[in-house]
Amino acid sequence: MPAFRIVVAAHGELASGLVAGARLICGELHHVQAIGLQPDESPEGYAERLAAACGEPGEPLLVLTDLVGGTPHNVAFALVRRRASAFLVSGVNLAVLIEAATSMDALDDDAVERLVAAGRAALSDAASLVASRNP
Amino acid sequence: MPAFRIVVAAHGELASGLVAGARLICGELHHVQAIGLQPDESPEGYAERLAAACGEPGEPLLVLTDLVGGTPHNVAFALVRRRASAFLVSGVNLAVLIEAATSMDALDDDAVERLVAAGRAALSDAASLVASRNP
Repeated sequence: MPAFRIVVAAHGELASGLVAGARLICGELHHVQAIGLQPDESPEGYAERLAAACGEPGEPLLVLTDLVGGTPHNVAFALVRRRASAFLVSGVNLAVLIEAATSMDALDDDAVERLVAAGRAALSDAASLVASRNP
Repeated sequence: MPAFRIVVAAHGELASGLVAGARLICGELHHVQAIGLQPDESPEGYAERLAAACGEPGEPLLVLTDLVGGTPHNVAFALVRRRASAFLVSGVNLAVLIEAATSMDALDDDAVERLVAAGRAALSDAASLVASRNP
């Protein structure tokens, strides 16, 4: 069980979809929560729900957002800035979520850097994986 | 309207969650389809549904998968390898999907390279966006 809480903040059903995808691969993930922005939800209402999912201010927290500039990211960013032990990675993909959710590392700048590197490495053109397209 | 079809191949509700998230931002996306691997679905059954969504072999096609090594990716990869005008990007995040879905570019190696670059740039540590954490 990792030593930090993970909250996925994303548009609509993407948040729960990411967590559902990770659960299909990893099994139950009690420390991971999805908070999806609903189509008609105000930023203020979303901020309340997100804060409630993020636990106590002193607790280590990783928030994964879908898109810089979107409401889920903006709200999460404001929340994370007010907390000393909170980190935020934007542009979440399934690799980042699984890597974070199964990590036994302490949550610090180095761990977050490794998460970003893992997510970026997972995001690739299949042509680079196969010689047949470029013989 | 882009000149190519996009299919998102991912675990469970992640596929539809990604497309729903993109629709919340971009509006209707008729050329984008989500094919999610169901928990009890066989690779063969999934391959049939994926092939049906991918249209005619000569048609330009972009498949976005969630995770290298997962069944959706493996099945999509086998399908894309058999088609000349099909491309595959793994590790999809919302930025890649939106960039692809709103692109007016022709689908070629350069366009795919730009998609991957956009997706990787969107995947970042928020600390790199804010001076307050590292004053």
